[in-house]
Amino acid sequence: MSIEHLPSASEPPRVVALAGGVGAARFLEGLVQVVEPARVTAVVNTGDDAEFYGLFVSPDVDIVLYTMAGLVDPDQGWGVRGDSFYALEMLGRYGQETWFRLGDRDLATHIYRTHLSRQGATPSEVAETLRRHLGVEVSILPMSDQPVRTQVRTHDGWLAFQDYFVKRRAADDVLDIRFAGIEAAQPGPAVVDAIERADIVVVCPSNPLVSIGTILAVPGIRQALCQRTLPVVAVSPIVGGATIKGPADRMMRGLGMEVSAVGIAEAYRDFLDVLVLDEQDRGLRGRVQELGVRVVVADTIMRDAATKAQLAGVTLHTAGLR
Amino acid sequence: MSIEHLPSASEPPRVVALAGGVGAARFLEGLVQVVEPARVTAVVNTGDDAEFYGLFVSPDVDIVLYTMAGLVDPDQGWGVRGDSFYALEMLGRYGQETWFRLGDRDLATHIYRTHLSRQGATPSEVAETLRRHLGVEVSILPMSDQPVRTQVRTHDGWLAFQDYFVKRRAADDVLDIRFAGIEAAQPGPAVVDAIERADIVVVCPSNPLVSIGTILAVPGIRQALCQRTLPVVAVSPIVGGATIKGPADRMMRGLGMEVSAVGIAEAYRDFLDVLVLDEQDRGLRGRVQELGVRVVVADTIMRDAATKAQLAGVTLHTAGLR
Repeated sequence: MSIEHLPSASEPPRVVALAGGVGAARFLEGLVQVVEPARVTAVVNTGDDAEFYGLFVSPDVDIVLYTMAGLVDPDQGWGVRGDSFYALEMLGRYGQETWFRLGDRDLATHIYRTHLSRQGATPSEVAETLRRHLGVEVSILPMSDQPVRTQVRTHDGWLAFQDYFVKRRAADDVLDIRFAGIEAAQPGPAVVDAIERADIVVVCPSNPLVSIGTILAVPGIRQALCQRTLPVVAVSPIVGGATIKGPADRMMRGLGMEVSAVGIAEAYRDFLDVLVLDEQDRGLRGRVQELGVRVVVADTIMRDAATKAQLAGVTLHTAGLR
Repeated sequence: MSIEHLPSASEPPRVVALAGGVGAARFLEGLVQVVEPARVTAVVNTGDDAEFYGLFVSPDVDIVLYTMAGLVDPDQGWGVRGDSFYALEMLGRYGQETWFRLGDRDLATHIYRTHLSRQGATPSEVAETLRRHLGVEVSILPMSDQPVRTQVRTHDGWLAFQDYFVKRRAADDVLDIRFAGIEAAQPGPAVVDAIERADIVVVCPSNPLVSIGTILAVPGIRQALCQRTLPVVAVSPIVGGATIKGPADRMMRGLGMEVSAVGIAEAYRDFLDVLVLDEQDRGLRGRVQELGVRVVVADTIMRDAATKAQLAGVTLHTAGLR
């Protein structure tokens, strides 16, 4: 890195966050309390993208977008707060499946995204347009402009991610995971540059397989992380042997990974400098360190704005940034 | 016509109704009280069709659809009763124009129509699919499967119909009308056959220029009406020198037509057998008859279910069908 990109008193740190959905968005809520939002770039998983009724839906991008815009439903962590479902009800009258709960305000996003896409806008351009209209200062970069579709193998065969995750409520045993289209995918136009220029890359507490794993599988992204000289810091999404939300623990077990902060460190060890793990997992410190990863113990349960900010602060501090 | 298509006691009459928007839909509400709905075919104007945010909207088809499904907003005569506008509000946040008031339930129709269309369904196939899902027994035939776009010339130049009608609230003087695409348009696949087989064709009390006029301009439809031997009956939309709803009177005046039942009879005289005109216009009877059109005087103001049914009954009676 050239000297002008080193953080200084006059230049606040640049932060890149690798982000899946809800866990990442909650971490970002803390991050923007302790860093200028305009200096934060979220590189977001698009493997969960899906099409409903011909509308393009990008769930993780929208979770980050709505959260940063202050619009997100705080209980679910996705969708728009107080949204109604009148269009969806009517789509049901037209015989359409309605298990993917698209609210009326949320549908506007998908209508507009689809409209822009059909006019030739890339996912990166769409995300940028949505962000600006909603007054979001954090940069939102889809991991790739090429379509990547996460698929999950179960005892019933390969399923599209949303079929597994939403329609079947993540109830199946996960035997394998693949990212259709990943070979042809390239990092979004600003992604590698953002990773190279960031003072810290934070791997958010997201699913290591189908959120972060998808981002890492885009050819060029993992390499860019490995080549960094400044810190990459992950926050473990596994606390006390389980996830706070979502099926990451069962997926990790299904794929033979250790369901612990150690399993997270193993998944990221080739580029990871620091792992922030929960106080409950203090006893795993030695095993993580043996993998060549520095450990910071913190309260990682994001209960409210204060604990979110505190976790973000600890994470930046591991890189000497606070 | 072959003998088996003549009405008989065992076979209820087949009725074709040429339909624009609100006035036609209200007439149809009466018609289905006095004729089996499954024997009614509405041939509907599509010149008002427009695209908003990449969604295909077919206002007159939807007015007929919603009215026949019992879903229509009874005060406006269009849109879904009690609809909300949350998606539209959100589209406004994305900088989109929101003067065309698409409700949330209504949007579902346009989302589904667009989805079917992009999969290759024709407007006729879409209308049929929508009708079936909403349990509508009346056949709804778009006048043509080819795109026709009504445009209105004002002192500010040519305007798309919805720009003139909704955005600018029909406030401009209308200097001319054209139907872009009309030369390449063909009648919808079942339209001419329906007209040929109908025991009566009713020209609904719709705008004679931009609703009925558009249908009549589709090559082949006017000719099919002229070739009928069984009656064509129109209900005058002009009562006492003005329209009940909409800008037909000002448009007719702008184009140099007489704004009266006589003007209506003149517009349709080449195929019209009977004109039903309002009691207020009883004095015009002689002038209409001079055009070779038989006159029936009735209460044509559709105030409620009873007056709608009565008007439909009178209309059928003119053809000896009730």
